[in-house]
Amino acid sequence: MTNIDSLPFSARGNALIGQEMFKVLDNAKKLELDGKKVFHLELGSPRMPPPEEIFQETIKALENKLTGYTSSSGLLELREEIGRQYSLNQKKIISSEEVVISPANLLVSQFMDLVCDKGDRIVLFSPFFPTYLAASSYIGLDVQDIPLSVKDGFDLSIEAVDKSLATHPRAIIVNSANNPTGRVYSQNVLEYLAKKCNELGIWLLSDETYASIAFGRPFFSLAGLDYPQLVVISSFSKIFSIPGFRTGYAIANKKVAEKLSLSNSTLFSCAPAFTQLGCLAGLMQLQEYGDKLKLHYQKTSKEIAKIIRRSSVLEIIEPDSAFYLFVDISQTCLKDTEFCELLLSEKHTATTPGSSFGKQFDNFVRIAICGNIEDVQEGVNRFMAFVEEYTAKNT
Amino acid sequence: MTNIDSLPFSARGNALIGQEMFKVLDNAKKLELDGKKVFHLELGSPRMPPPEEIFQETIKALENKLTGYTSSSGLLELREEIGRQYSLNQKKIISSEEVVISPANLLVSQFMDLVCDKGDRIVLFSPFFPTYLAASSYIGLDVQDIPLSVKDGFDLSIEAVDKSLATHPRAIIVNSANNPTGRVYSQNVLEYLAKKCNELGIWLLSDETYASIAFGRPFFSLAGLDYPQLVVISSFSKIFSIPGFRTGYAIANKKVAEKLSLSNSTLFSCAPAFTQLGCLAGLMQLQEYGDKLKLHYQKTSKEIAKIIRRSSVLEIIEPDSAFYLFVDISQTCLKDTEFCELLLSEKHTATTPGSSFGKQFDNFVRIAICGNIEDVQEGVNRFMAFVEEYTAKNT
Repeated sequence: MTNIDSLPFSARGNALIGQEMFKVLDNAKKLELDGKKVFHLELGSPRMPPPEEIFQETIKALENKLTGYTSSSGLLELREEIGRQYSLNQKKIISSEEVVISPANLLVSQFMDLVCDKGDRIVLFSPFFPTYLAASSYIGLDVQDIPLSVKDGFDLSIEAVDKSLATHPRAIIVNSANNPTGRVYSQNVLEYLAKKCNELGIWLLSDETYASIAFGRPFFSLAGLDYPQLVVISSFSKIFSIPGFRTGYAIANKKVAEKLSLSNSTLFSCAPAFTQLGCLAGLMQLQEYGDKLKLHYQKTSKEIAKIIRRSSVLEIIEPDSAFYLFVDISQTCLKDTEFCELLLSEKHTATTPGSSFGKQFDNFVRIAICGNIEDVQEGVNRFMAFVEEYTAKNT
Repeated sequence: MTNIDSLPFSARGNALIGQEMFKVLDNAKKLELDGKKVFHLELGSPRMPPPEEIFQETIKALENKLTGYTSSSGLLELREEIGRQYSLNQKKIISSEEVVISPANLLVSQFMDLVCDKGDRIVLFSPFFPTYLAASSYIGLDVQDIPLSVKDGFDLSIEAVDKSLATHPRAIIVNSANNPTGRVYSQNVLEYLAKKCNELGIWLLSDETYASIAFGRPFFSLAGLDYPQLVVISSFSKIFSIPGFRTGYAIANKKVAEKLSLSNSTLFSCAPAFTQLGCLAGLMQLQEYGDKLKLHYQKTSKEIAKIIRRSSVLEIIEPDSAFYLFVDISQTCLKDTEFCELLLSEKHTATTPGSSFGKQFDNFVRIAICGNIEDVQEGVNRFMAFVEEYTAKNT
């Protein structure tokens, strides 16, 4: 008979770590259940009102009882529109057969499982989005962490790319605009990375989830490159402020897109029709809504950065893109997890420890500035008050 | 540089087979794009009107802009209500911590990946739901197929259970009420299976997706058993006629539920709030709606079985549960795939080849009777006409 404390899980089962932000969220929710008001700066959960058209179309589809299965690749009309919009901005035509609908977070695991076997090496440039590490750990990949330099503002350099290639990886993940640093990488370096991967037969995942809310350095998408081992992923979560829709997409050559579609069919059959139709309606508003978002986030991140800079204790680098500020807390002499725990318990303000984005960043904390603006401001004020009180007490 | 025809996918990437029904659906859709009316008997996509309360609550949640992230385990109120309803029918209390929300199809892969390593043996009793084989193949499991006897009406026998245990598997999947046979297994045999798995430390997945639409032999759920290596899964897709909501759940002991929740967090973060709130509203109508469904499907399957039995060429066993009839086409002398292709091209009627449910069933075809009732009747009429014309021509 089985001992409940030593259940025989698989290697994958034992390697599960999940996402730190969701653990912070669960702790924050416990405080809320006790009747406390919590200021959420932990999750990249945008609170800007989404385009009304998304709700109208989703509700219309529900009223029309579109509750059946759909194609495993995603609705043809949505894939066509994504292809059409990308084709406008790229040097090549992207057809519906090169687009697959799936939650962007899931696409990270789907990509890794399609191209990597257990023990294969994958490069992550750190700081990185925690799902990359969680999925790599779960799948049993050999993660090669290439840290970007804080002195360069966490920009991706030719040197960092060369260093990553020298490890002879099976796959590389690149994330511009970056979560958590907000850095947008230069066209020059991204093209160099893709060209080298092409020459060396290395799989490349370009996560462009935050692309259309980049307001600093001009964003460059890899989707226009003709490279068979390149997969570009993005999400409607951030660009339309609808993370709860769980809808994203991949752009890849037909052979890879077919595999991703089979992966969808095997794992979850298909995506709901009504959320996909909602996202399609959103795409018609992308330009206008995106411009509004950019202005809003640029203004907010400038304001918040200014407040943080008032403290002589904290350091930040101004981002090119929403939703985050990656704050150096070294001078508080607190490690990130203790900092976040104290901040939550004393000031009811939730943030994400820097080490979630690469273990060497335990002197950083990530602040998400995409929530309700009054809550973000009050949360940041509490964050600052905590830092000031703590450092006054301990110096 | 990479050759597009020999992309270096992983072992998983190369082993992807997807679900046959979705390939049939894609072929059927091609005919529809040519303006043809197709009669869909391939997918278990129910067309009964779902409970209105589900739409009302889903739409209300959208109107309330509930588009943020939720807990990775699923909404607490939904998990509590599932636990409460199961507790009513079982000998033990099932708490919200023993319930995890995830698409039921995905839960099959999640379970396999949590408890099996590559090469581990898994038992499937055939005929089986194709996702079990697709997921096993993808993960690289050693599938031990234990065929159930057509003479016993595909019932699960003590002998079949003993045979499965003798292969020393890591895990076993049992599916009552069964897709595709509609057979409900006896309490006696299911308890024997669970007891033996417990003794031998074998993981057991009980897929109870079609439980509450069983109208024949009384359905017995394994959810009441206190066995740490047992995971029960089910779905709202079939019981509320809303497959497009992609929402299901697992019931497991807390330690396993925690792993499933971490798996959710790693793979797709969380499920939408609005679909979960819709399903919660549905649960309040489960008894009344379920009773209506049972009556409808019992009547339909009796009527369709009667029509099929009129032919001297076809054989079927009456099911205990919706949505399917598993029809023996041996006497047509056609193999299943050729039969299905001819039926689709000549009569525009889509069905699923029997070999999708276990390779030895290439003399069977699965008919789904859950669609629009007029379409099902016309589809079955066309099915019968095809069989008669074909056999007249070839005898």
